[in-house]
Amino acid sequence: MERRKFLKTAATGGAAAALAAPLAAPAIAQEAPTIRWRLTSGFPRSLDTIYGAAETFADHVKAMSGGKIEIQVFPAGEIVPTPQAAEAVATNTVEMAHTCSYYYWGKDPTFALGTAVPFGLNARLMNGWLYQGGGNDMLNAFYAKQNLYGIAGGNTGVQMGGWWRKEITSAEDLKGVKMRIAGIAGKVMEKLGVVPQQIPGGDIYPSLERGTIDAAEWIGPYDDQKLGFNKVAPYYYYPGFWEGGPTIHFFINLDKWNELPEDYKAIMINAGAYANTDMMARYDTLNPGALKSLIAGGAKLKPFPQDVLEAAFAASHEVYDEISASNADFKQIWDSMKAYRGEGYLWYQVAEYSFDTFQIRNRTKG
Amino acid sequence: MERRKFLKTAATGGAAAALAAPLAAPAIAQEAPTIRWRLTSGFPRSLDTIYGAAETFADHVKAMSGGKIEIQVFPAGEIVPTPQAAEAVATNTVEMAHTCSYYYWGKDPTFALGTAVPFGLNARLMNGWLYQGGGNDMLNAFYAKQNLYGIAGGNTGVQMGGWWRKEITSAEDLKGVKMRIAGIAGKVMEKLGVVPQQIPGGDIYPSLERGTIDAAEWIGPYDDQKLGFNKVAPYYYYPGFWEGGPTIHFFINLDKWNELPEDYKAIMINAGAYANTDMMARYDTLNPGALKSLIAGGAKLKPFPQDVLEAAFAASHEVYDEISASNADFKQIWDSMKAYRGEGYLWYQVAEYSFDTFQIRNRTKG
Repeated sequence: MERRKFLKTAATGGAAAALAAPLAAPAIAQEAPTIRWRLTSGFPRSLDTIYGAAETFADHVKAMSGGKIEIQVFPAGEIVPTPQAAEAVATNTVEMAHTCSYYYWGKDPTFALGTAVPFGLNARLMNGWLYQGGGNDMLNAFYAKQNLYGIAGGNTGVQMGGWWRKEITSAEDLKGVKMRIAGIAGKVMEKLGVVPQQIPGGDIYPSLERGTIDAAEWIGPYDDQKLGFNKVAPYYYYPGFWEGGPTIHFFINLDKWNELPEDYKAIMINAGAYANTDMMARYDTLNPGALKSLIAGGAKLKPFPQDVLEAAFAASHEVYDEISASNADFKQIWDSMKAYRGEGYLWYQVAEYSFDTFQIRNRTKG
Repeated sequence: MERRKFLKTAATGGAAAALAAPLAAPAIAQEAPTIRWRLTSGFPRSLDTIYGAAETFADHVKAMSGGKIEIQVFPAGEIVPTPQAAEAVATNTVEMAHTCSYYYWGKDPTFALGTAVPFGLNARLMNGWLYQGGGNDMLNAFYAKQNLYGIAGGNTGVQMGGWWRKEITSAEDLKGVKMRIAGIAGKVMEKLGVVPQQIPGGDIYPSLERGTIDAAEWIGPYDDQKLGFNKVAPYYYYPGFWEGGPTIHFFINLDKWNELPEDYKAIMINAGAYANTDMMARYDTLNPGALKSLIAGGAKLKPFPQDVLEAAFAASHEVYDEISASNADFKQIWDSMKAYRGEGYLWYQVAEYSFDTFQIRNRTKG
């Protein structure tokens, strides 16, 4: 009894039932069906850390099921373009996607909360909120309305604030800057006078080179390095305050999810947890060397001025209030995330932050 | 070919083979054996976040295997006392334990590196090192010599620096302080003049009350609160620099591990990843409220003086050099962890730390 209660707290959404059921039900391994699914990634193969998390998931799911569950991973655009990935899963064109929930915020801004919103949660608090703060359950109640089931499956950590052709010395300097930035972050930047531009990844470099745009946000050192932005827009700002701990999701067609045997659901939830941690680990392992290379290649590392952060923080909360006024799902989930942020940082600032502070200061002494 | 190579990098130790094998081997679900194992926890039930991670692991493993793998979890001391848990697994008295590797450092100090050493890695960098920095492989090469296989299965985050009867204003004040602290941390504190005491958890409160000891380290707000130390030793110091990101391990008897079908190995590795993230999430969710209660109950929150941290850092590295001089396993693994720390914080200090800094400062403004 107590154990079941514990499980309900520990597990994610429908997964609570998935994990609790075998305690009572007989073993069903002998009748295990073979599953062959297609997964469309929201990312190209070249973004190997993010794209690779879908392969990790597929490999682990296959290994755990003794080969019974086979998920074929396709790069963005090969069968479904990224902007249509959520819809393609909802309509069962493909059974699964591995993509950012916030790409679909145009359909409903609530989608943005599944990934990251400006001044939201860092990666660790995002996991805290998802796994134990009610986040997974609330998001899945929303995703269910979209005929989707979501499993957190990757994080990049705090991203960089992008590449800028000119130095920014105060919030005044943002006025009129044409910046490649999308979603709620674009709306926030617009309030600061930035002119948001939507440009596919492949067009950023020539646009920056020609001066068609003045700035572009991408990801972080390891991914940014591949595109060579340092050569055409050398000011490399931090932090990417609009992406404090972006979660990448596995989305599964809800009918397909509901049809899965309970053990297969549990297998997918646990593979998601592995992929989630493993992607973060890959970034933390690969970013340091890339950052050093970028600086050696001319990148000028700069913190955003304090007044930019403060103006952006205020603008972000204006945007949240505007959306919350007419969108009950957004309001409910954002209120929960915001409360978790307040409590989470209350603790995080004590032992965690002071330990990191010492380690960072000490590091520079050798 | 490429995928297999990727797997070898992504997976943990023997798990690389475990995860790769089903790609070639036929499905074996029909012949899945039933496994009934006993797991001894290094913790009592009352430490529900840590103890609970073993239950989470057992529940997930059972769910994923359709009931074929049943792991019965026993609290510390019910069948094996914590100090004998690793030995009991190595000799197959029990098949598994869920405990801190550093409890067994007396047998070989290399055990300490699996959990945490003073000024080691924070939780996120620990995962980075374990999953992608070679940590899991190196630790398992060492654990294999002890007839153990280890899977990371939980983290507390940076712990607190314990409860002190008197205020500490400089490193001078540490001299002669009788402190309940064990392991390598005890050796480090000894170099600063502290007199380390080894006392079981249940005896700490009366010892502090009577003044038999002057200070005691335990875990963090949620666990500390249960023992009421704030009533007898009100100074609550941070950070617990000897435990930056302590990993709790699942240990499995190596022969039992090697006998497992490949799909069962994969199931355990993925359940370990879930438990690892979920324990951290529970602490991040429960610690804030506990911290507020402790402060309301008279705890005086204090940062360690800077010269204490600096003296402890120097003492720690003296200890590591001393051990490394005569222990090749320790030297190899510590050198790897230390290098990861240097690179990891190089990146962590940029976007991650500056984002947290803003969020923390901003939080206090409301």
